[in-house]
Amino acid sequence: MRFPRLLFAAALALCAFDAQAETVAQATSPDGVIKVELDVNGEGRVAYRVFDHGKPLIGDSRLGFIFRNGREFLRNLKLDAQATSAFDETWEQPWGERHYVRNHYNELRASFVETDHDHRRFDVVFRVFDDGVGFRYEIPEQPALQEAQIMEELTEFAIARPATAWWIPALEWNREEYLYHKTPLQEVGVAQTPLTLRTDDGTHVSIHEAALVDYAGMNLMHGENGVLRALLTPGSPAKVVRQTPFDTPWRTIEITDSAAQLAESNLILNLNAPNQLGEVSWFKPSKFVGVWWSMHLGQQTWATGPQHAATTANTRRYIDFAAKNGFRGVLVEGWNPGWDGDWFANGWGFDYTRATKDFDIDGLSKYAASRNVHLVGHHETGCAVSHYESQLGKALDLDARLGIDVVKTGYVCDAGQVERQDEADGPVVREWHEGQWMSNHYLHVVQEAAQRHIAIDSHEPIKDTGLRRTYPNWVAREGARGMEYNAWGNPPNPPEHEINLVFARMLGGPMDYTPGIVSLTGRNGQEIQSTLARQLALYVCIYSPVQMVADLPEHYAQHQDAFQFIKDVAVDWDESHVLAGEVGEYVATARKARDSGEWFLGAMNAYDPRTLSLPLSFLAQGKHYRAEIYRDGAGADWHGAARFRFVREAKTVTRDDALSLWLAAGGGAAVRFVPLD
Amino acid sequence: MRFPRLLFAAALALCAFDAQAETVAQATSPDGVIKVELDVNGEGRVAYRVFDHGKPLIGDSRLGFIFRNGREFLRNLKLDAQATSAFDETWEQPWGERHYVRNHYNELRASFVETDHDHRRFDVVFRVFDDGVGFRYEIPEQPALQEAQIMEELTEFAIARPATAWWIPALEWNREEYLYHKTPLQEVGVAQTPLTLRTDDGTHVSIHEAALVDYAGMNLMHGENGVLRALLTPGSPAKVVRQTPFDTPWRTIEITDSAAQLAESNLILNLNAPNQLGEVSWFKPSKFVGVWWSMHLGQQTWATGPQHAATTANTRRYIDFAAKNGFRGVLVEGWNPGWDGDWFANGWGFDYTRATKDFDIDGLSKYAASRNVHLVGHHETGCAVSHYESQLGKALDLDARLGIDVVKTGYVCDAGQVERQDEADGPVVREWHEGQWMSNHYLHVVQEAAQRHIAIDSHEPIKDTGLRRTYPNWVAREGARGMEYNAWGNPPNPPEHEINLVFARMLGGPMDYTPGIVSLTGRNGQEIQSTLARQLALYVCIYSPVQMVADLPEHYAQHQDAFQFIKDVAVDWDESHVLAGEVGEYVATARKARDSGEWFLGAMNAYDPRTLSLPLSFLAQGKHYRAEIYRDGAGADWHGAARFRFVREAKTVTRDDALSLWLAAGGGAAVRFVPLD
Repeated sequence: MRFPRLLFAAALALCAFDAQAETVAQATSPDGVIKVELDVNGEGRVAYRVFDHGKPLIGDSRLGFIFRNGREFLRNLKLDAQATSAFDETWEQPWGERHYVRNHYNELRASFVETDHDHRRFDVVFRVFDDGVGFRYEIPEQPALQEAQIMEELTEFAIARPATAWWIPALEWNREEYLYHKTPLQEVGVAQTPLTLRTDDGTHVSIHEAALVDYAGMNLMHGENGVLRALLTPGSPAKVVRQTPFDTPWRTIEITDSAAQLAESNLILNLNAPNQLGEVSWFKPSKFVGVWWSMHLGQQTWATGPQHAATTANTRRYIDFAAKNGFRGVLVEGWNPGWDGDWFANGWGFDYTRATKDFDIDGLSKYAASRNVHLVGHHETGCAVSHYESQLGKALDLDARLGIDVVKTGYVCDAGQVERQDEADGPVVREWHEGQWMSNHYLHVVQEAAQRHIAIDSHEPIKDTGLRRTYPNWVAREGARGMEYNAWGNPPNPPEHEINLVFARMLGGPMDYTPGIVSLTGRNGQEIQSTLARQLALYVCIYSPVQMVADLPEHYAQHQDAFQFIKDVAVDWDESHVLAGEVGEYVATARKARDSGEWFLGAMNAYDPRTLSLPLSFLAQGKHYRAEIYRDGAGADWHGAARFRFVREAKTVTRDDALSLWLAAGGGAAVRFVPLD
Repeated sequence: MRFPRLLFAAALALCAFDAQAETVAQATSPDGVIKVELDVNGEGRVAYRVFDHGKPLIGDSRLGFIFRNGREFLRNLKLDAQATSAFDETWEQPWGERHYVRNHYNELRASFVETDHDHRRFDVVFRVFDDGVGFRYEIPEQPALQEAQIMEELTEFAIARPATAWWIPALEWNREEYLYHKTPLQEVGVAQTPLTLRTDDGTHVSIHEAALVDYAGMNLMHGENGVLRALLTPGSPAKVVRQTPFDTPWRTIEITDSAAQLAESNLILNLNAPNQLGEVSWFKPSKFVGVWWSMHLGQQTWATGPQHAATTANTRRYIDFAAKNGFRGVLVEGWNPGWDGDWFANGWGFDYTRATKDFDIDGLSKYAASRNVHLVGHHETGCAVSHYESQLGKALDLDARLGIDVVKTGYVCDAGQVERQDEADGPVVREWHEGQWMSNHYLHVVQEAAQRHIAIDSHEPIKDTGLRRTYPNWVAREGARGMEYNAWGNPPNPPEHEINLVFARMLGGPMDYTPGIVSLTGRNGQEIQSTLARQLALYVCIYSPVQMVADLPEHYAQHQDAFQFIKDVAVDWDESHVLAGEVGEYVATARKARDSGEWFLGAMNAYDPRTLSLPLSFLAQGKHYRAEIYRDGAGADWHGAARFRFVREAKTVTRDDALSLWLAAGGGAAVRFVPLD
């Protein structure tokens, strides 16, 4: 029997057990459209629900914890106090999709206390924005809960309307590199966040988290009745171990009327703490080339030997290429010792403090500096994370000395192969990319780098939850299936994938997708499922402040027309607007470059050719612009030679015009608007 | 990037990556209908698949482990050896649904070894029966894997056909007391086992496990593409910690053409090890009454005081009632100190070695013995499990001294509130009813009891996985929503629930459902959703070798006709046959009593009134029987006064007859067949 406790309760409570209890607290968005209600049921369980436009969007969704070292913390609760407040500020991004971000919400703080036993407490803080809801648990310091060993956080999301979901699995806890599933909400398996939903009545919802610090990443699984429930990433001895007081990450529910609005939301950033680094103008948003694609093509190797890519001569060639074309950075992978054996999930042999013999790192740094170029560092850990940490300070010191001010990190291994060794010769235990220990590791690297004015671009990262606001040197991450799958993936990324990224993964933050493969061809002639114009659109649609110019110099030489756009496109923005789009189908994005007055537009398309008519009302009043248009040519398609059908043309436009763009299947378009007045 | 390892692999392997690999091993059921194939794909991942009648039933389903203290154990595997064998035996049950059980299967042992690193090994052993498949991992002793700290077992079940599922959630890991969900397979949330499926082409499948020993219980969740995946019950520092060599529990897939065959399967029992206790005739299958329902009705209390149920006088009354009507046992709950405070999930105050002052346990035991009756013990732990263990030996010694040879145990608490304290004054950590530590605890109690010739009836148990074969004194468990929910549950058990139990929960083993509430009324007049005849049917349909006669004596006095069947019905069987049934709709079961030659039949119905025409061909050739029929009367129904419409009648039948039984909505029937020749 389960509820003998009820035998001692009043009959009234018994009858009320499953009934919806009264609302004990509520909050509404500034525009009044979104409303959150809290209730406590007959069992003393706390639930929240969310309405938009007066209709239920999230039904009663429970809150609470299961601990290893204490009683469950989810029943016999009562509301002890509540407070509401309003907040409205506009803050400045040092770099980003937009210069200024408005942070406008109403807050509800509800304090709950147990009615029995130890009278433990937690607060739930809801912030209700015009475009969604964030909430977190705040656990105060208290005698009966000094350390919380969290086995599971029982947060639910009971989507109350039929919906279609786009999601990637949290399979084997094996990071984020999957193609998106599109399924009915009811058929979502164990899923990572951001998870994107479109309800049958057209509301767009994204469930994610913000400010994931010193906690395990949240995944979602189905509990019962179609309710999604948090499933934290594994850890040991519990998924999360924290001393009180502490706050959980924010659980976020972005809610918009369209896919475009979803992609424009700043809710995740707004829920992160302000910049803790102060002046960060030492980070320069920029493009970079790299000793990289040739290895994914199998033409060169990370390992030393006759095919070694990271040689002095080869790198000089890339420095020259970057300097000639105005790219600031040159990434070199395979520059350091450790790649010659089986480093996969076995990175204990990496040395981050010196280069291989055939790579004159000092000379190359000087040469790069002389040409106004910076090497981009690379720290592949092979998931021997403790080993990397032991060299981290020295490695970053080396970078700083050499003028390397952006470092790409890597954590390549399979499921649960992150290796943690707390003491020399101690046992090695396994951690997960999105577990609590790794959340601290990634941030530790970012903080160490910040002290040396170095920016971090994490590959195989923990998911992006907007921490770039707090640590603006955490400039980009991978965290999704990127371009390299077009080199050797089976299948390569299909045409809808990059559009799914815009409406799911990118809601977390910038992605280093490594765009611009104008050769459109992977290993063994594998066709990339993209037109040429679409490779240019990626620079606008997939935001990152560090954008790779990823193809080989000789390939760009063969596509000088297209290459011109890559040279011209900006990487830092005053404004960004998603002009049109549907999840998995197409997207068109316009961004205004910082300081130059230029605008750029990117559009990408999945399978159905379409013509978009895009009003140019984002352009400045009273100005004429030369629109330099790079688009799919007639008959273009994502198969065979048709991939290369491509038109570059120019015309003069004003904000009163609409631009008609035909997008091929798997196609795209990119436009630069240069002010003429 | 995720698979740079592939960059070093041959192009051929790359191309083969996602393609179905060749079959490396296979096995077929003795009748040839079910076939299992194993393959290894380009990543070195092992998969199994299952066909029945030549058609795929389970698609490629992966196998493997994620460890805390070592690399994942699921890729880069190759088949190193394989062996097949055939097995056919018939073994005798000391008690059970049938006297003799045939155990007939073909076995495939496939030995896999890693092709790199530490060359670790595991075997997968498949046993293919005519009614399904069992498989387990056998991990040999090996230098590179001395201790396995298992974070997750990545066993999959990729059901290849559209199906309907009946399942209960593994919500908050809060034991088994839920109503069944009926959903499309794709909408199964995190679920406990046994999980029952009916594919759209009518095949019945149950996924469960056998011989859960020193391991965490397996739940199921959706991975991706609708594939069900194991999700082990939590534990710490890992879900399972074992030294090699060890075997996992058997993962079982019962496969039959009908619901009836599913309910008749012996596959779970057959996969358990034979009786380790030797002669167990000291256990007597029997019925028992008890000081119990009055407390669930709220008329009396477990706690001492004016309403205390477990008094000497009240217990004497029950002993007299049992003796008069031929029931062997008298359960008394609330007999010991510890119930007076808030014992729920807080059982540290229980004393199992002495009775409360108003309960003369010695005198009552002697009085019971004088009337040929045995007290049934009761050990409610309130989940202070370490505390219970510290008294276990003395408690069982007391029981043995008093002639108490069946003990009902209890573990009442909410999610993750099982309390474990390894050292006095050490920290209390939380465990789960179905976690590894508790799997050992439950078995420890059973083994300690066996030494004293005491049988155990575990409430709030770990799920039943057939261990009664190995430990025949583990005679019953609760492990589902039982009758007490009809006293105070909201809602009470609906008419389909007990039928769902037959086709899901009961596939694990006997359940102490506590049937026979002839008053059909719970607390505050709550109507039990059953007719009177159906309460009798429960004694046949819901198998247990210890069957409670659960209602109050005064209620049986008001229903002497119905009570006659309860007095007559057997509790131990030579044969059992499910004559007809559909999951969630109806069931009819016939069982032959051991030694008496009598047969009993029970039938239960959900919502649609129906008439079953049941051939009596199970009766002995050439014999006449008096069929004593207890059935729903005209107009019977599960609402109001119609619940009590009831007919008792008799007629003479032979095996050539068919019995026509009308079953009301929420109704049932019970028949005793007494041989006349």
